[in-house]
Amino acid sequence: MRLATLRLNGTTAAARIEADAAVELPAADVGALLAMPDWRTVAASDGPRHDLAGLDRAPVVPRPGKIVCVGLNYRTHITEMGRDLPEYPTLFGKFAEALIGPTDDIVLPASSEAMDWEAELAVVIGAPVRHADEEQARAAIAGYTVLNDVTARDWQYRSVQWLQGKTFEATTPMGPDLVTLDELGEGGLDIECVVDGDTVQSSNTADLVFGPVELVRYVSSIATLRPGDVIATGTTGGVGHARKPPRYLADGSEVVTRVEGIGELVNTARREQIDG
Amino acid sequence: MRLATLRLNGTTAAARIEADAAVELPAADVGALLAMPDWRTVAASDGPRHDLAGLDRAPVVPRPGKIVCVGLNYRTHITEMGRDLPEYPTLFGKFAEALIGPTDDIVLPASSEAMDWEAELAVVIGAPVRHADEEQARAAIAGYTVLNDVTARDWQYRSVQWLQGKTFEATTPMGPDLVTLDELGEGGLDIECVVDGDTVQSSNTADLVFGPVELVRYVSSIATLRPGDVIATGTTGGVGHARKPPRYLADGSEVVTRVEGIGELVNTARREQIDG
Repeated sequence: MRLATLRLNGTTAAARIEADAAVELPAADVGALLAMPDWRTVAASDGPRHDLAGLDRAPVVPRPGKIVCVGLNYRTHITEMGRDLPEYPTLFGKFAEALIGPTDDIVLPASSEAMDWEAELAVVIGAPVRHADEEQARAAIAGYTVLNDVTARDWQYRSVQWLQGKTFEATTPMGPDLVTLDELGEGGLDIECVVDGDTVQSSNTADLVFGPVELVRYVSSIATLRPGDVIATGTTGGVGHARKPPRYLADGSEVVTRVEGIGELVNTARREQIDG
Repeated sequence: MRLATLRLNGTTAAARIEADAAVELPAADVGALLAMPDWRTVAASDGPRHDLAGLDRAPVVPRPGKIVCVGLNYRTHITEMGRDLPEYPTLFGKFAEALIGPTDDIVLPASSEAMDWEAELAVVIGAPVRHADEEQARAAIAGYTVLNDVTARDWQYRSVQWLQGKTFEATTPMGPDLVTLDELGEGGLDIECVVDGDTVQSSNTADLVFGPVELVRYVSSIATLRPGDVIATGTTGGVGHARKPPRYLADGSEVVTRVEGIGELVNTARREQIDG
């Protein structure tokens, strides 16, 4: 099943995406849908149908209670940098204000000259879970979506903590759909980022050091994960900051972020105009 | 004015705290109250009165949209460690699941052997604000409260990012009241932490490198701050981890966290019992 949050008539609505239509569901967005204990039943229900063409999607979960991001999580990328594989995941936060829809513009802050891409698989939680074992962790996953953890490198490294470079307003596309696990099989999924036609990142989620189930288990040992919470699983090599010379997003850059079986984000970077 | 979130009859209610009573207000908690554009008027209204004795308070804002924490922000403590004063604040996140009320038990995670105290002044936002100048930043502050950023040092340093040691469930007392700025004057406020009768931290908020107004201005340059959002302004020297030998919270430890003119948190640490 594929779920999305549509922008309709100045508000939003959750929808099930079918081959030929989006079927509106009785929830304000996918976050509100997932908060219903019987969301799988509700998500299968009938409702007003909308043409897929021209649909305007919001971030698939517009206001997650938590967005937990993971750093340093692609095996090949870590070892090629000569580092040891980590014993524990590196976790940091992002706030919901950063999120944008799958075709919205990425706002390049007027205060940053170093906005960079990070294509990621994102896990969306579908049930409250705390101190999960592997089976409980798997059952708590509603599905996967695509996220680009667009980062202001100059702000990320202003201090030892990355948050301020990671949570600029309207910088993080998420969507287009939440895809439930039964549609995706057990294998790894190809993931890539294409900037202005150049494939800058290309990997497969089988290369994750800490996979979705392990991350849900780990985070749930710290705090309760709730429906709509998001875990962004980290990015692979190929970010602009690591290039010589570095390459960053410019006004007008087109960023495509794609995960096999889920779909793609297509966003244009636009320089922020303050008071204009 | 002093505002609190009371636990009453299995739910919560915002209240104004007066000398002899708590006056119930028409909002589910202080966060919901602050979300009303005319909250100062609503907060002055009349309502059911409750005896102050025996009131059970929730975290003053039970579910902030954002909790932004600041590290390395007390001047004396930084310079006594031989470090230079920072050019930018160090920011990291905390999730709402960490919050507890001002007299609730601090849960010592079964998985941590190094739970430590960090007494902090917390700023609560009272109006949406983005790209604030100094005046706008000041106007966006609803008031101050007290917070103890209780930290699992062993988890904090598992990776280079501190989040996982900072956001354990039910570890962060916040309250007892939100006190508006007109009650506090312009000077610094004494702040201290007392563990099992020993004054382990003692400072004054005049020693902050980045004060409340500057922090609101800075964070608002990254993302919109909204009513109920919290900025925890950082802690001073005297944490248990820096002692030789280190000193951590034990089952039964009593932690008092106090800020002049606001009030105190009195919490007992209790070791988590999983499945028991």
